[in-house]
Amino acid sequence: MAPFHCLTFLTDYGLEDGFVAACHGVALQIAPNTLITDITHLVPPGDIRRGAVVLAQTARYFPPAVHVAVVDPGVGTARRAIAVAAGDSVFVGPDNGLLSWAVAEFGATAAVSLTNRALWRDTVTATFHGRDIFMPVAAHLATGTPLAQAGDALDVASLVMLPRPESRVGVGGSGGQPPSELGNIGAEVLTVDRFGNAQLSVTGADAARAGLVPGVPVTLAWDGHERMVAFGSTFGDVTAGELVGYTDSAGYVAIAVNGGSATKRLGLRPGTRITLTITK
Amino acid sequence: MAPFHCLTFLTDYGLEDGFVAACHGVALQIAPNTLITDITHLVPPGDIRRGAVVLAQTARYFPPAVHVAVVDPGVGTARRAIAVAAGDSVFVGPDNGLLSWAVAEFGATAAVSLTNRALWRDTVTATFHGRDIFMPVAAHLATGTPLAQAGDALDVASLVMLPRPESRVGVGGSGGQPPSELGNIGAEVLTVDRFGNAQLSVTGADAARAGLVPGVPVTLAWDGHERMVAFGSTFGDVTAGELVGYTDSAGYVAIAVNGGSATKRLGLRPGTRITLTITK
Amino acid sequence: MAPFHCLTFLTDYGLEDGFVAACHGVALQIAPNTLITDITHLVPPGDIRRGAVVLAQTARYFPPAVHVAVVDPGVGTARRAIAVAAGDSVFVGPDNGLLSWAVAEFGATAAVSLTNRALWRDTVTATFHGRDIFMPVAAHLATGTPLAQAGDALDVASLVMLPRPESRVGVGGSGGQPPSELGNIGAEVLTVDRFGNAQLSVTGADAARAGLVPGVPVTLAWDGHERMVAFGSTFGDVTAGELVGYTDSAGYVAIAVNGGSATKRLGLRPGTRITLTITK
Repeated sequence: MAPFHCLTFLTDYGLEDGFVAACHGVALQIAPNTLITDITHLVPPGDIRRGAVVLAQTARYFPPAVHVAVVDPGVGTARRAIAVAAGDSVFVGPDNGLLSWAVAEFGATAAVSLTNRALWRDTVTATFHGRDIFMPVAAHLATGTPLAQAGDALDVASLVMLPRPESRVGVGGSGGQPPSELGNIGAEVLTVDRFGNAQLSVTGADAARAGLVPGVPVTLAWDGHERMVAFGSTFGDVTAGELVGYTDSAGYVAIAVNGGSATKRLGLRPGTRITLTITK
Repeated sequence: MAPFHCLTFLTDYGLEDGFVAACHGVALQIAPNTLITDITHLVPPGDIRRGAVVLAQTARYFPPAVHVAVVDPGVGTARRAIAVAAGDSVFVGPDNGLLSWAVAEFGATAAVSLTNRALWRDTVTATFHGRDIFMPVAAHLATGTPLAQAGDALDVASLVMLPRPESRVGVGGSGGQPPSELGNIGAEVLTVDRFGNAQLSVTGADAARAGLVPGVPVTLAWDGHERMVAFGSTFGDVTAGELVGYTDSAGYVAIAVNGGSATKRLGLRPGTRITLTITK
Repeated sequence: MAPFHCLTFLTDYGLEDGFVAACHGVALQIAPNTLITDITHLVPPGDIRRGAVVLAQTARYFPPAVHVAVVDPGVGTARRAIAVAAGDSVFVGPDNGLLSWAVAEFGATAAVSLTNRALWRDTVTATFHGRDIFMPVAAHLATGTPLAQAGDALDVASLVMLPRPESRVGVGGSGGQPPSELGNIGAEVLTVDRFGNAQLSVTGADAARAGLVPGVPVTLAWDGHERMVAFGSTFGDVTAGELVGYTDSAGYVAIAVNGGSATKRLGLRPGTRITLTITK
């Protein structure tokens, strides 16, 4: 395997302790010329799904890289530690679904269970595999160590997959049939960001096929609430303080408040089921 | 333009999402050997003035660099995207005043509107110009692409400037005249830092001309409150828990509590108007 | 002194201001090819002990490096600024105990007081020695400037040491004597991490000599409270929501809740005195 210039790092370790830096130090000892970029370390503790969303929506902007991700509530138990070749990159982390959405997007070509202890730190603790297993293995891979040397080959189909979030787009009228459920979309809140924008589990492309495009008003319904919002292209399409639907920078339909927080305004959380109906 | 070794990055993107890292990834694809230093990504969402203060007070400590700053509540609307050559550096960001205090300090020599789409990402979304326009353009500039190639030349005088915060220093007595308003300073809170120190919009040098120097007691008045504080050089000039005025590390008059938070104690916020009168 | 590839940086500066980045910029001007790794900048303001714990438990994972640490409530007062050669590394910071636990672990071989102003920034403020003294001196040391050039030699024994936290392990029965206080451990909470795990001031090795090993139940007593917990190897050794004692990744006994926060559950804070008695 050719060496990688880049290694990215995503965890739920937080920034107030030395955990992230200890991993950097371990990597530096093995791969001093590899550039380490932190994706985020503020995944809520143990929130695998949140880690999976951020990893999948960020890894795509990097050159070929070793992507290390550790959100690992089962550390030290029987869950496997894995490395997966996908696209031009390699993903390293626990086999608990954390890597699955990114790997699916990149297209897995090979996987191994990290069983070769020669690539681990000499001492392995039961609670910090990021420092003791994942990062040293990843650093070795970054220097060009072949994936197959990291451990036993795994069937890619055996990797743990997170379930895809619910998403249903009513589209009809093709082939001379009358449109059915046109403009009726069922989704859930996939993730919320710092700005309080709620990203839904339906792509803007799918929504457009159902008729949801800028300029169209849409009715949101969730948890017994209902609200009409304008669908636009960006925050400034509505006046300050107003709700706006739009296709976000990752390609998903999202709900925002111009200059405010949609999640606070509407009480949306990851996993909230929501329907969007185009308002006639 | 000679290539730049350094690129700095300041935003209001926060650290819990993958936004910052996506921008790093985009830059790495264009300028793999440029060193990216994050200034901060915790500017309060949309707070252009706070971003402008931090950028101006930090950029000055870097070697020649491309400074990318994105606090951009108007993303996707008609506001211009700009790059400004100033001193030995280049500033890249939205034309909303965010860059203006740093650019004024460095001295603008040329500016362009970022209209050359060849330097953008292939796909440009309406809500993430940091990733799709500002960072790729900045990375190209870091590799030595001439500023003029980034877009249409702009008159430097046409750039949006943030208004200077209020600052009035009574100084008199020169030329044989009697002193008038000596030691009477009107200012506002420019910014507050992590420690709860309140930086005022008057420099220590100007304050000294009005007689405010270490050893002099001063009366603060704001929002109907009044408090006498010692003016010193550092926190330890007063006992723990006491208020102290001093000239801070950026050269501005500031109010601190030794071992505590002046902003909490006094209820000061950015923009609070405050007068300082030397106590006879 | 041979140049160092790595420089680490730990402070209580926070991440919302430009303080950390200003220090990076200063270092870049002096040592453009040195890699700067941030350990953490979220040490609670002025909390020297917390900084000392994190530094000591993180520096050990780095290759030879210049470690800069600044938690410096006495900045600008008479406290000394120091650099200490220890092991293959150099530690730079205020002489207030912050460096002492790391230096003790690495083994100090030489120390200087940072009195050579030629290595400082031209302008030195009274409140930001991280930017004006510690970082420029450290960057010079990273490029290979000999330690002795940084200032006057100091007796290593004269450096300020933080007191070691209380730790008492009852071990007996050796040499034919009956065991006394076997399995009775007195400790204090050394630090708490993002996950709410409480690290105690007794190593797992010492605890094991007293009979505290995985599989043994132990009674915690603190502040008038008492709780029995299982002692295991990792979080997953108990069911979700249960308390577990274990030897943590730094080698210390710690208390966790599987999937939750032990510090919240038990009201533990750094410094809390706690006894562990093996339950018969």
